[in-house]
Amino acid sequence: MIRSDGRRPDELREVKITLDYIKHAEGSCLIEFGDTRVICTASVEEKVPPFLKGSGQGWITAEYSMIPRATVQRTVRESAKGRLTGRTQEIQRLIGRSLRSSVDLLALGEITIWIDCDVIQADGGTRTASITGAFVALYRALQKIDKLSAVKNFVAAVSVGIVDGEYLLDLNYEEDSIAEVDMNIVMNDRGEFIEIQGTAEGKPFSRNDLDRLLALGEAGIKQLFEKQKKVLGVEE
Amino acid sequence: MIRSDGRRPDELREVKITLDYIKHAEGSCLIEFGDTRVICTASVEEKVPPFLKGSGQGWITAEYSMIPRATVQRTVRESAKGRLTGRTQEIQRLIGRSLRSSVDLLALGEITIWIDCDVIQADGGTRTASITGAFVALYRALQKIDKLSAVKNFVAAVSVGIVDGEYLLDLNYEEDSIAEVDMNIVMNDRGEFIEIQGTAEGKPFSRNDLDRLLALGEAGIKQLFEKQKKVLGVEE
Amino acid sequence: MIRSDGRRPDELREVKITLDYIKHAEGSCLIEFGDTRVICTASVEEKVPPFLKGSGQGWITAEYSMIPRATVQRTVRESAKGRLTGRTQEIQRLIGRSLRSSVDLLALGEITIWIDCDVIQADGGTRTASITGAFVALYRALQKIDKLSAVKNFVAAVSVGIVDGEYLLDLNYEEDSIAEVDMNIVMNDRGEFIEIQGTAEGKPFSRNDLDRLLALGEAGIKQLFEKQKKVLGVEE
Amino acid sequence: MIRSDGRRPDELREVKITLDYIKHAEGSCLIEFGDTRVICTASVEEKVPPFLKGSGQGWITAEYSMIPRATVQRTVRESAKGRLTGRTQEIQRLIGRSLRSSVDLLALGEITIWIDCDVIQADGGTRTASITGAFVALYRALQKIDKLSAVKNFVAAVSVGIVDGEYLLDLNYEEDSIAEVDMNIVMNDRGEFIEIQGTAEGKPFSRNDLDRLLALGEAGIKQLFEKQKKVLGVEE
Amino acid sequence: MIRSDGRRPDELREVKITLDYIKHAEGSCLIEFGDTRVICTASVEEKVPPFLKGSGQGWITAEYSMIPRATVQRTVRESAKGRLTGRTQEIQRLIGRSLRSSVDLLALGEITIWIDCDVIQADGGTRTASITGAFVALYRALQKIDKLSAVKNFVAAVSVGIVDGEYLLDLNYEEDSIAEVDMNIVMNDRGEFIEIQGTAEGKPFSRNDLDRLLALGEAGIKQLFEKQKKVLGVEE
Amino acid sequence: MIRSDGRRPDELREVKITLDYIKHAEGSCLIEFGDTRVICTASVEEKVPPFLKGSGQGWITAEYSMIPRATVQRTVRESAKGRLTGRTQEIQRLIGRSLRSSVDLLALGEITIWIDCDVIQADGGTRTASITGAFVALYRALQKIDKLSAVKNFVAAVSVGIVDGEYLLDLNYEEDSIAEVDMNIVMNDRGEFIEIQGTAEGKPFSRNDLDRLLALGEAGIKQLFEKQKKVLGVEE
Repeated sequence: MIRSDGRRPDELREVKITLDYIKHAEGSCLIEFGDTRVICTASVEEKVPPFLKGSGQGWITAEYSMIPRATVQRTVRESAKGRLTGRTQEIQRLIGRSLRSSVDLLALGEITIWIDCDVIQADGGTRTASITGAFVALYRALQKIDKLSAVKNFVAAVSVGIVDGEYLLDLNYEEDSIAEVDMNIVMNDRGEFIEIQGTAEGKPFSRNDLDRLLALGEAGIKQLFEKQKKVLGVEE
Repeated sequence: MIRSDGRRPDELREVKITLDYIKHAEGSCLIEFGDTRVICTASVEEKVPPFLKGSGQGWITAEYSMIPRATVQRTVRESAKGRLTGRTQEIQRLIGRSLRSSVDLLALGEITIWIDCDVIQADGGTRTASITGAFVALYRALQKIDKLSAVKNFVAAVSVGIVDGEYLLDLNYEEDSIAEVDMNIVMNDRGEFIEIQGTAEGKPFSRNDLDRLLALGEAGIKQLFEKQKKVLGVEE
Repeated sequence: MIRSDGRRPDELREVKITLDYIKHAEGSCLIEFGDTRVICTASVEEKVPPFLKGSGQGWITAEYSMIPRATVQRTVRESAKGRLTGRTQEIQRLIGRSLRSSVDLLALGEITIWIDCDVIQADGGTRTASITGAFVALYRALQKIDKLSAVKNFVAAVSVGIVDGEYLLDLNYEEDSIAEVDMNIVMNDRGEFIEIQGTAEGKPFSRNDLDRLLALGEAGIKQLFEKQKKVLGVEE
Repeated sequence: MIRSDGRRPDELREVKITLDYIKHAEGSCLIEFGDTRVICTASVEEKVPPFLKGSGQGWITAEYSMIPRATVQRTVRESAKGRLTGRTQEIQRLIGRSLRSSVDLLALGEITIWIDCDVIQADGGTRTASITGAFVALYRALQKIDKLSAVKNFVAAVSVGIVDGEYLLDLNYEEDSIAEVDMNIVMNDRGEFIEIQGTAEGKPFSRNDLDRLLALGEAGIKQLFEKQKKVLGVEE
Repeated sequence: MIRSDGRRPDELREVKITLDYIKHAEGSCLIEFGDTRVICTASVEEKVPPFLKGSGQGWITAEYSMIPRATVQRTVRESAKGRLTGRTQEIQRLIGRSLRSSVDLLALGEITIWIDCDVIQADGGTRTASITGAFVALYRALQKIDKLSAVKNFVAAVSVGIVDGEYLLDLNYEEDSIAEVDMNIVMNDRGEFIEIQGTAEGKPFSRNDLDRLLALGEAGIKQLFEKQKKVLGVEE
Repeated sequence: MIRSDGRRPDELREVKITLDYIKHAEGSCLIEFGDTRVICTASVEEKVPPFLKGSGQGWITAEYSMIPRATVQRTVRESAKGRLTGRTQEIQRLIGRSLRSSVDLLALGEITIWIDCDVIQADGGTRTASITGAFVALYRALQKIDKLSAVKNFVAAVSVGIVDGEYLLDLNYEEDSIAEVDMNIVMNDRGEFIEIQGTAEGKPFSRNDLDRLLALGEAGIKQLFEKQKKVLGVEE
């Protein structure tokens, strides 16, 4: 089976990471999963949220947004609506949890790392591209403030799904919008799971479907770790 | 291993469902998973959201809330804050998706079913109790308006997790707050998955952990279907 | 004259108070005035609002809400709207003022008691049931923290009104919606008034009407004090 | 007893009404109760709120605000806070109800009268001055659109209270802030009550107190009707 | 050419300034530019915004609003909408900047002056009347707190514009709504510019147009300084 | 005098325009004024705002935002704050007015063009870069929908200012933050002014200063028109 963009079912889109994309940020990159493009920045703040004051522990928090015309139809700005959609909040929480799992917060000390993922063009997989790029920005920021020792492992994410009964890796928007099952997988580079979110969009899925999707995702994420390490100059 | 409340690792808390708990609602129940108590109502509205007008199709949407002192520490009302937290929005979206998977929306016709899950006492598992109770309220409402034929299957949900290396079913608040891995599983009564959300809270999980948790959850959900069917007078 | 629910004009609905209804709260009850059911909790916080800091004086504040299907037609959640209605704010202020009148705030010391009244089923008189139940929850909380000496008197409330020219006690929803005059009376158990709010809904009222309504209210409130004291084990 | 501003206990402050104070409004006045000054306007809109569409009936609704430095201490603008306080909402609802009681809404036809009461200087009694002035603006607007026949009666309001055990009419700010009991009375010019709101601020009140306060208020309101009628050129 | 209200093109409307219009404010006036009437108050607060704490420097900030029926059509209150319009924010920022240019903020010391401009009747030029009146209120407040030495110069503002090819001073609402070019000029009494905002509403303007408008504005502002100084008793 | 980045006082920063930067938008570009980078998109919607319905006339409206780490210090998202700052609203209104001046809205027909300017890196002059880039996106969108005939002229903008007594063109952030006078000039390619906004930040400016700044701005804007025309393939 050949996908509409010519890929094999188990093939990632072309992944590009442009390091240090934003000059003001301690860490930043532009990450591209095919036509999906996300600016990821990591900003260091010398204080922690109230619930951590005096704990000696740091914090990592994430925000996610899309520019209005990142999408096929222009979407209304959340700043104009005056509140975040549920979708945005879900994604922000997912990115934050995923990154926190990769860092020893005590080793950070009492600082906050603000992760910002701003989607400038969307073609499916914005949340997985965001996690994968945000880790790069985070790593870069920790390098700059000399806290790389706090990094426990790399983190990357990919989507998998079932479309017309086929198991597909890294769905683009067209595939995503007709998928029967949609799953986001976040892993670390020790082969462990950080987060699994699988949703039956149209049709429930069996245990066998789940196994097939997990295998596909694991293989894809391995390639993302290679990309991250290469751009950051980390030897595997 | 015996749990703090005396349960075996693979044991549900006592589940009670009081049908028709709220007199005004087309369908309602009070569901209790141990000390977790949720009022679930299903309200029928004779119109659909704009995006479905003229489609011939119905809709099911869910809202979730907690009274302030449902929790150990009083929580600030979202109405006083003027906006929903990310957690609330995530849960609302999960309940809505789960219930929509159980109903043939075309067979509903152009009506909306509003599901309200109001937690009056929280002791862990409020979202899984909400889904399980909301299905009962929904079923009851469809019965009242003579649309039971739109029901495709039953839906129930349970949480599983890893605490101190032990695989546990249906975590209470105390267990949930120290769990290394926390997973919510939504299934239908044909043994299929609707939604899986697994999160490494403290420590990543392996493929083997995942398999063990899924098995535990499946067994627990089977018992919930029995409870639902008994209270609704449905023969298995 | 016999009312639609079989009561005499000067008869209260059946009043039930279930003490300690919510396990986490310092004080709580479920209060029922017929089909009107309200969960009342009192939560103790070890600080005061800014305007009382350093004054040595405590504070009591109240919040009121209804679950969406407490009413005949589902009402939109105030958390979804992002703001409280004028009606809710009026009721909250009334409950707060009424309870503060019953306690010596200096004897409380610098703590805040948060009163929450959550209506789970509404059939008229939700604000009077809330005040009457909230006092019970407050009393219970003060008992738990050993501050009963701060209680100056009991407080209870009831509605009265004129329907079809008849003077009625404790109106249910059906009566309330057609009342010509609607009055809420809050009293203490020394026979004094805390608050009187009388409104001509359809038709102005005379001085004689007012006198008749006050007498009816006073008699009803006396019975509420008996209920409160019985459930709290206080001898009259 | 002589009051701080030299008045007798049963004496109103000087009341001035400047008719047609705002040129754009269909009806308007500046009303002064001593140093309390309120601009009242009545604006006619050729439509009704959704719940009255097609009913043949009109509507009267009121808004109330204070400029920030109307008060001794500058108050934060509600537009800057992004929401109305409970106090503002209570007052708006009271003004609206009071005026609606004076007009035959069916005789109005399907129009809305917007009443705006903007306090430019506050010295106690802003809500009673607002009701009294708003009626004048309303009357004037109905005169302009040739609907005076819809007016059923005049409406005016005054405050009474107990200060240091004395029964006082028309409290100024200084008196209001130390009053033990504070009561607002709205009446029509047939001697009937529209609304009574009595609150024990510091100390509960007896039945006898209530009777004394009502008598004081009735006498004061009679004088307000004379002022209204004189400025509007209505013969008594 | 004679304007609709009988003025010559280079003629101001009648300007009246009533000093000390609001008794509670440290400084206040009612300013009238023809039918445009604005209440301006200056309130002194004994603290500064966070960004100035410890700087030894004071601050001046401004708020602007219109009562709903200041305008020909009633406008919706910003407090009811829950947010300020862009127009209001622009005007507030302009007033604040203009006044800050006239005062030595270090000489003020760490206090904040809150300027409030409340338009009670609008007929064009509300922002220029606001600036001109706000300066008077500010001057008066500084006089009261004995800080007149902090005043560096007087500030006043006027509008100019092109209507039907004619250059006009101090446009009223009717002229403003059909102007091709609209310009607001803020100057100090040393003949210098504080702010120039020129907008081509219908048709772009040439360099020559600009020169003509600036000359017209300068001449008008000179007359405003005379009015301000006369009412404040300042010798020129 | 040589500026910190090596430019002459009358020299623009390097200006780059990347056309068709966002694939979904009808028109788009990335515009760079030195380190200031803005994504501009133009989106076509087949309807107009309510006030234009049935008028036969189209509309152009603009929104402006910055990603949080576009700035030296991370700025809080307006979507997180729930409202737009005054600065953002001012800039949005300025962009909208400027673009509307360049198009014959009647020739557009009843469509709306949404302009979005998203600053991804800020180094001074974001509003002038936005206007200049937004015109390019707008032109491109009109080309795509075959409405180029509605374009009346080109529009571009630049900032000028006085720093340390020197007249400078196209200020970068460092210069802007210490400027005594700051002026934004919007012109069309017929040499006419659309908008002039000059503000004395530190020190008032004379008529002579103004003349010098305008001359500097005119010369700079001419070069911007050349850039725009070159990238759009328009012959001068």
